[in-house]
Amino acid sequence: MVFQGPCYNKTWSLSINGKVYGQSGMIARNASISSGPDQQASSPDHRPLSSAAPLSFTVEACCTQTRARAGSIQTPHGVIRTPVFMPVGTQASVKSLTPRELREIGAQIILSNTYHLYLRPGPEVIARFGGLHGFSRWTGPILTDSGGFQVFSLGHLRRLNDDGVTFKSHLDGSEHILTPEKVITVEEQFGADIILPLDECVPYPYTYEGARLAMERTHRWARRALAAKTRSDQALFGIVQGWVDPDLRRESARFIGNMPFAGFAIGGLSVGEPKAMMWEMLDITVPELPEDKPRHLLGVGSPEDLFEGVARGIDMFDCVLPTRVARNGGLFTLDGRVNIASARFREEHGPVDPSCDCPTCAEFSAGYLHHLARSGELLYYRLASLHNLRFMFRLIDRIRQSIFDGTFSELRSSFLTRYVPASEAVRAEQRQRWLAARKRGSHHHPG
Amino acid sequence: MVFQGPCYNKTWSLSINGKVYGQSGMIARNASISSGPDQQASSPDHRPLSSAAPLSFTVEACCTQTRARAGSIQTPHGVIRTPVFMPVGTQASVKSLTPRELREIGAQIILSNTYHLYLRPGPEVIARFGGLHGFSRWTGPILTDSGGFQVFSLGHLRRLNDDGVTFKSHLDGSEHILTPEKVITVEEQFGADIILPLDECVPYPYTYEGARLAMERTHRWARRALAAKTRSDQALFGIVQGWVDPDLRRESARFIGNMPFAGFAIGGLSVGEPKAMMWEMLDITVPELPEDKPRHLLGVGSPEDLFEGVARGIDMFDCVLPTRVARNGGLFTLDGRVNIASARFREEHGPVDPSCDCPTCAEFSAGYLHHLARSGELLYYRLASLHNLRFMFRLIDRIRQSIFDGTFSELRSSFLTRYVPASEAVRAEQRQRWLAARKRGSHHHPG
Repeated sequence: MVFQGPCYNKTWSLSINGKVYGQSGMIARNASISSGPDQQASSPDHRPLSSAAPLSFTVEACCTQTRARAGSIQTPHGVIRTPVFMPVGTQASVKSLTPRELREIGAQIILSNTYHLYLRPGPEVIARFGGLHGFSRWTGPILTDSGGFQVFSLGHLRRLNDDGVTFKSHLDGSEHILTPEKVITVEEQFGADIILPLDECVPYPYTYEGARLAMERTHRWARRALAAKTRSDQALFGIVQGWVDPDLRRESARFIGNMPFAGFAIGGLSVGEPKAMMWEMLDITVPELPEDKPRHLLGVGSPEDLFEGVARGIDMFDCVLPTRVARNGGLFTLDGRVNIASARFREEHGPVDPSCDCPTCAEFSAGYLHHLARSGELLYYRLASLHNLRFMFRLIDRIRQSIFDGTFSELRSSFLTRYVPASEAVRAEQRQRWLAARKRGSHHHPG
Repeated sequence: MVFQGPCYNKTWSLSINGKVYGQSGMIARNASISSGPDQQASSPDHRPLSSAAPLSFTVEACCTQTRARAGSIQTPHGVIRTPVFMPVGTQASVKSLTPRELREIGAQIILSNTYHLYLRPGPEVIARFGGLHGFSRWTGPILTDSGGFQVFSLGHLRRLNDDGVTFKSHLDGSEHILTPEKVITVEEQFGADIILPLDECVPYPYTYEGARLAMERTHRWARRALAAKTRSDQALFGIVQGWVDPDLRRESARFIGNMPFAGFAIGGLSVGEPKAMMWEMLDITVPELPEDKPRHLLGVGSPEDLFEGVARGIDMFDCVLPTRVARNGGLFTLDGRVNIASARFREEHGPVDPSCDCPTCAEFSAGYLHHLARSGELLYYRLASLHNLRFMFRLIDRIRQSIFDGTFSELRSSFLTRYVPASEAVRAEQRQRWLAARKRGSHHHPG
């Protein structure tokens, strides 16, 4: 794919006097102030909308052959250099790691799950601790999702209508209602830098008609989320849906992209569809979104996915995969994923990956990791998670640098030539193991 | 108890020309060389015995009211200040913690289990990694037990006779034989600084006659272990047995205490008997042991146990309790053990223990720990283990200082007045939970 995309090496600041507005139809180039409160985005009923947030995004370099771009996002808790990969702290903790360790290996922003934290310990508790930052002691930027994805995949769904969604907690069976407004209230209590609105995510396979209705509901909910937002120090991103249908994707991207969100998340992908289909949907979606806002591909991905997503204009990624795979024995190397429990590591005196600069490879042999993994030792989960996350952070940093250097395409080919992705069979097996662990009620594997 | 014990503020060095001998009947005061190779300890058949190790022990201060004493042990991997509490790294890893963290919170020496490491990954593998030090990257002193206790409690015992013990692995059912000689060979492959000989440990309750036979076998095995030892850079400790019978304890302490071991471990206690009985056995055992060798009370204990053991002349303690209790929600404070999962911590914004200087209390609230514990988050196990181990290290350091200051008895009373030990009911319940977890095959809880 060759893409000659526009590149704005500019900052669009979206904050004025504490009250903040984004304007997707108008790009204030070379300016650090933007449209005022009276300039609202066009939206179906022209109601004034509450809006985006004090988030400024600068595109600093673009690839001339793909949609890849490098930039930075300024948030109340610091700058995020993009493209960025964010680890997931489902329960306000990236499994087994401390905030200090995450900083040391290069984490810039953490994603936490509204669904889990809403159920336990609850938004009021977290608010009284000073939000997620005070609670978890992670001092950098945080993004919270809307809980929608988990309600549909983990909760026992009771009722879904335009008002919202009623579900039973997977923890204790208690019944809860989430509406677009309620989700915003909860996320304001959590206090993340970037928040997402409630959306309806459909699985794959599904029906066209069902997917269209879900998309339309997601659009109506997006408007309500914007209207419900009250905090001026949080950035609300819109979520594009549209299943795997090109027309729906295009329609959703245009609709959501036209609303005054501070950035855009692409949802409903990586839910079981073939990867080629996911990339096709990105090729359709991204060109419909504003150039001046960050784009987040939800729930993706693996090392090779970073290249494919970045090439299609994605700025932000999040996924449990690196840490979940690590806990199940899969460690990333430049040659692909290896299974540390396999006999070939039993007597390996060197590190898992001699080219790796993570704390694990700096100190421990692959043979010792092998032993810890086979023994089910708690230390294994830490050391493996540190390794895989450091691999992801270092890889995305190399990708970012290559965009500045004009060598992204070369890096992409050389990486993908060497790196052997996990086969579909391995991926399916690991997914089964994970589902089985979740079913057993293990606390350690889901994630 | 008031005890006017002798105190030797002297170093007894037990190493001469790489070949090293201890001599319990002769105390070389104020000397850093001791008896030569021709001076062997009297032993039943007067055979020349291979012997102790390059370990020197200095008693630096004694309590005038109890048998408490403070000193230091020089080992090939550094000095151990006594009394000392050592954490247990069953599988060459103190559960969830790195060697670096252990050093930072004050660990001086780690105990590892020969039984577990013999079965997996095996002594040959560990030897090729440079022993346990090279394998685990813990650079300080290490002690390995003999595996006997685990064979009797974990393995499926097949046959026990004077030659040794045949058992089936709890991992895969494979059959193995451990003899006194084999255990020494294995421990020499592991390369710990301090090693223990195979002994026969009987449970409580038991029969007098059975306990006497086990003790006598332990004594015969002790001689064979001394004879089998070949490495001059490891210190072999003897193990005193004798069940809970005063006469057997006295006999065993005299017999083992008269042999040229570099130190003495007291085994067969804390196996189910009432605590008062354990302390009574120590009161009988310790006076029979040489003053110039360190004394290790195996598998003990809790914070309050440190005071009782030190008062009776114990220099070294090891126990999984602080880390195992931590993983099950029990955190130490100066007021006693608290259950972090209890509702009262839900909104506690301060640390678990405001007087604690551990990394956990320095950074995280009790409310966040409560949330992690309730969520079964892996990070909880780390933070809790760090806290409880730091509590133990700090407590034993305070005990040591009080011996120098002549205030040990005051510290003991003031600590025991305030600290409420876990009730027998709580201890029994936690033991049940641990056994249940082990039965389920959970890797995370057994310790």
